[in-house]
Amino acid sequence: MRLPLLDVEARVAAALRAAGASGAMAEATAAALVLAEGQGLGSHGLSRVGQYATHLRNGRVNGAAVPRVLRRKGGALVVDAEEGLAFPACALAVQEAVAGAREHGIAVAGVVRSHHCGVVVDHLRAAAAAGFVGLGFANSPAAMPAAGGRHPVFGTNPVAAIFPRGAAEPLMIDLSLSEVARGKVMVAAKAGKPIPEGWALDAAGNPTTDAQAALAGSMLAIGAATSSKGAMLALVVELLVTALIGAHFGFEASSFFVDEGNRPGIGQAFIVIDPGALAGAAHYVERVDVLVAEMLQDNGVRLPGARRAALLRQAQADGLDVPDALLQAWPAA
Amino acid sequence: MRLPLLDVEARVAAALRAAGASGAMAEATAAALVLAEGQGLGSHGLSRVGQYATHLRNGRVNGAAVPRVLRRKGGALVVDAEEGLAFPACALAVQEAVAGAREHGIAVAGVVRSHHCGVVVDHLRAAAAAGFVGLGFANSPAAMPAAGGRHPVFGTNPVAAIFPRGAAEPLMIDLSLSEVARGKVMVAAKAGKPIPEGWALDAAGNPTTDAQAALAGSMLAIGAATSSKGAMLALVVELLVTALIGAHFGFEASSFFVDEGNRPGIGQAFIVIDPGALAGAAHYVERVDVLVAEMLQDNGVRLPGARRAALLRQAQADGLDVPDALLQAWPAA
Repeated sequence: MRLPLLDVEARVAAALRAAGASGAMAEATAAALVLAEGQGLGSHGLSRVGQYATHLRNGRVNGAAVPRVLRRKGGALVVDAEEGLAFPACALAVQEAVAGAREHGIAVAGVVRSHHCGVVVDHLRAAAAAGFVGLGFANSPAAMPAAGGRHPVFGTNPVAAIFPRGAAEPLMIDLSLSEVARGKVMVAAKAGKPIPEGWALDAAGNPTTDAQAALAGSMLAIGAATSSKGAMLALVVELLVTALIGAHFGFEASSFFVDEGNRPGIGQAFIVIDPGALAGAAHYVERVDVLVAEMLQDNGVRLPGARRAALLRQAQADGLDVPDALLQAWPAA
Repeated sequence: MRLPLLDVEARVAAALRAAGASGAMAEATAAALVLAEGQGLGSHGLSRVGQYATHLRNGRVNGAAVPRVLRRKGGALVVDAEEGLAFPACALAVQEAVAGAREHGIAVAGVVRSHHCGVVVDHLRAAAAAGFVGLGFANSPAAMPAAGGRHPVFGTNPVAAIFPRGAAEPLMIDLSLSEVARGKVMVAAKAGKPIPEGWALDAAGNPTTDAQAALAGSMLAIGAATSSKGAMLALVVELLVTALIGAHFGFEASSFFVDEGNRPGIGQAFIVIDPGALAGAAHYVERVDVLVAEMLQDNGVRLPGARRAALLRQAQADGLDVPDALLQAWPAA
């Protein structure tokens, strides 16, 4: 059924409330999932409603959580997500980081006792709206080995960045540090198809092209076929979000893709920086434009975020086509 | 000739002074190059003395530069390297960022009007010595295309991170975002050998295995054979160091590997964060140890920085073997 975005949001929020989420948690989460779906990011969109609802019902998520600032020193602060869905906590963290960057030039906000945070760069939109540059990092349940290792230690540990551009749409970079998303292996496994080499290891730590064996094993980091750089970047993200901020390690968290399991307690970290404190706000915007012009000299280059923005405009105009099966599967409002 | 590290430093400093560097610039640079050489990082070690001396003599480097803080707001500041060699400016930037993180919990220090900064993570040792986490970013003369592009826009744009570990040696991550260092292509070109696919494009923007053609073209980002993630990370580093901080773009800078050319004016950015402001200093150290133990369950895993540290201890004990040809090639003291 084709529905306006706001209608989809209302239905998702109702489904999450029915599963035990507070009104505020349900609304923030519904808005984020519909925003992802509208941008064409289905793996972080409506497909997650059932998962989040199940986690709420099974006690893997605290539906009554109210995120709060746990501690703060200058431009550094930690938000406690209280084991709720991540979205209200991430919103609070970025809001506080924007305030911190306004005062201190730069700020970092960590989120602990958190859950799956969806599209990391979307949390940074509030930073770009203030004219600030944002960086985002998240860890996730263990899926990738350390460089040279054979068992999963790190999550696919996404990295995001947002660069506002004055009147133009911000540049939005958002990528996981695995060679491919685990979802691609799940699709191959369901279809009974093999996967390319370089995507995954089996449970014994050996390279595999068997999608089922890969799901029981490890995903590989970007470029793992030829270097350990991707795995080293995953280590950096893991340490920033855990040891530095205080969240749990990916190897301490149960997978998001199972119904039972612990409250994952993984985390997010957002760094927000005011160009006005460094190169100057006007100089910053001018120089981004210069770089963009240089990049666009090659026909094959597309700006990061441009495709998502175009899809979102289309969804805002035309609504979203939500499968009836999905609508019926959601807990009733 | 085998020489103690301090003797090598003195000879390098003398060579740089003879080429026009101030005493402070020569000493800071010599210490950094010998530190790199001692860690087995020859491409950023003594092989650079001749290049830096030539740039000093040809006016590509201002030997009289005195780095200074150009502007500051809270925990954010910009250091002007005054077109000198980068090392004294990077040292000042990290020193100021450490002071900023002590006061504000987090700080960022950019370096503008700079030059080749050697091993990025070595600049962050001062942050680790204070018990702080450090991140480092540098841009460099254009060598890699944007995602989907055909001509060089970004440098190989190294990323570094340091995580102190209490009494144990810090974890030191340091990698360029190119699939391989340009130096490897230069070695192949000199030897008349081909390079693997996935390393480079030729001048027309097509994949090549011809090392000479690659030198006239572009290096590729990590994992470029299968994804654009590496190129997207290079874009993030480029924007942080240029638009945000105020340095020149990589495509505005002449190569470090030519004698004539402009003062490159590229830059560096360092972010320093106090774990005491977030998870807490003791909790931080404990948790890094937990992650390290988990990583080391697999025999194949080595900790980042461990090999460099072992080589450095050996060089400190045994001295460095400096080829006579190199000693004779340096400008006389």
